[in-house]
Amino acid sequence: MARNKHPEETINLILDVAFRRFMEKGYEHTSIQDIIDHLGGLSKGAIYHHFKSKEDILMAVSDRMTAKSNQMLAAIRDCPGLSGKEKLKTIFKESINRPVQNDIFTVAPNFHSNSKLLSSLLHETIEEAAPDYILPIIEQGIEDCSVKTDYPKQLAELILLAANVWMNPMIFDSSEKETYCKFMVFDQMLRGFGLDIVDKEMLERLQELTSIYTKSRQSSAR
Amino acid sequence: MARNKHPEETINLILDVAFRRFMEKGYEHTSIQDIIDHLGGLSKGAIYHHFKSKEDILMAVSDRMTAKSNQMLAAIRDCPGLSGKEKLKTIFKESINRPVQNDIFTVAPNFHSNSKLLSSLLHETIEEAAPDYILPIIEQGIEDCSVKTDYPKQLAELILLAANVWMNPMIFDSSEKETYCKFMVFDQMLRGFGLDIVDKEMLERLQELTSIYTKSRQSSAR
Repeated sequence: MARNKHPEETINLILDVAFRRFMEKGYEHTSIQDIIDHLGGLSKGAIYHHFKSKEDILMAVSDRMTAKSNQMLAAIRDCPGLSGKEKLKTIFKESINRPVQNDIFTVAPNFHSNSKLLSSLLHETIEEAAPDYILPIIEQGIEDCSVKTDYPKQLAELILLAANVWMNPMIFDSSEKETYCKFMVFDQMLRGFGLDIVDKEMLERLQELTSIYTKSRQSSAR
Repeated sequence: MARNKHPEETINLILDVAFRRFMEKGYEHTSIQDIIDHLGGLSKGAIYHHFKSKEDILMAVSDRMTAKSNQMLAAIRDCPGLSGKEKLKTIFKESINRPVQNDIFTVAPNFHSNSKLLSSLLHETIEEAAPDYILPIIEQGIEDCSVKTDYPKQLAELILLAANVWMNPMIFDSSEKETYCKFMVFDQMLRGFGLDIVDKEMLERLQELTSIYTKSRQSSAR
C-alpha cells in the first residue's frame, strides 16, 4: 500500500488497528511489529513517520478516547435544566457507564511501568478536565446552592483527582474490595461539600470495571 | 582519587555534592559534569558505576530524604499520649516545618519534564507512606473516636494523595493564592472525617514554601 495522501486517515487506521491489537493481546504483549502485520501492507517507515514508539501510539489512542469523552462532558456541562449537583451526578454516571470503558479496562496498560502515561493522565485531569468541565458545573452549583464551597477551581481538581486517578484500578491495582472501600470514602468526602451524588449502581459498575481489569492483567501475566 | 573501598561512602559523597549543585544551580541547570567537577577527582566512570543518569541521582537524593522523613513519621506514629487526631496534626506540622523543606523547594525539579519522579512520588505516597505511617494513626483515631471513617486504609491514601501530590506546588506549579485555596478545600475535606487539624501557622508555612519554589523556578528559567 502506498503512503496515504491523507495523513489523518493513516493515523486513524494505525490507531484503530493498534487499539484492537491492545484489546486482544494486552498492551504489554503487543509489539510494533504486531501492529504493522495487521496494517494491510503499510510499511514500518510509514508507522514510524507518525509515531516514535509503541508508548507514543498508546498516548495517541488515549488522546483520541479523551476527545470523545470530552464531547460527552461538554454536553452535560451545557445541558439546560439541571442543577450543578445533578450535572456532577450525571457526569460520573455517564463516564463509568460508557461501553468503551470495558475496552479501556481490557487493554489494561501497566501504569507502573509507564510513567509518561501516568504523568499525562495526572496533568490532563488537573489542568484540562477539571477547569474545562467540572469547574463550570461547580460554579453553577454554588449559584444554585447545590454545592458547598468557596473554592470551585480547587474542589473541581480534588474531586477529579480522586475519581480519575486514585479510584482508577489501573493505576493502583485495586481489588474489587478496595474499589468498594475507596468508593465509600469518596462518597463521604463529597458529602462534606454537600454532594450526595454517588449511588449503588455506580459502585456496581465500578466494581465490574475493576473485575474486567483484574482478569485482563491476570491473563496478560500468563 | 582511587575508587573508594566503601561504596556507601562514595554514594553518599556523590549525593551530597549533587544535592548542593542542584541547590545552587537548580536541577535542570546542573549537568553530570558539574557534579563530577565538584567530586574532588572522582572519575566519570565511578559516578556512572553507581548511577545511570542525572535523573537516577535525583531519585537517590530524594530516597535519602524520604528515609530521614520516615524516621520522623515513625516517631510521631509511635509516640505515646497523643490521640489519632493529634498525631495527624503533628505529622502535618512537622512535615512542612522541617528546615530541609526549604532546600527541597529550592532544588525545584520540574515534575512536568520528569514523569519518572512524579510516578515514583505517587506510588510511594499511596503504597508506602500511607499504609506505613498514616494508616496506623487513623486506626488509632477510630478507636479513640477522633477520626470518623470505616475505611482507614483508603482514608489514609486519600489524605496523603491530597497533601503530598495535589497540594505540592512543585507538581502543579501552584501560586501562593492557589496554595491558599487548596489548603482551604483540604481543611473542608478533612472536617468531613472529623479532622479539624490544620491551622493558620501551617498555611503560612506552606505559602512560604510555595514562594521559595516560585522564586527558584523563576531564577532557573532565566
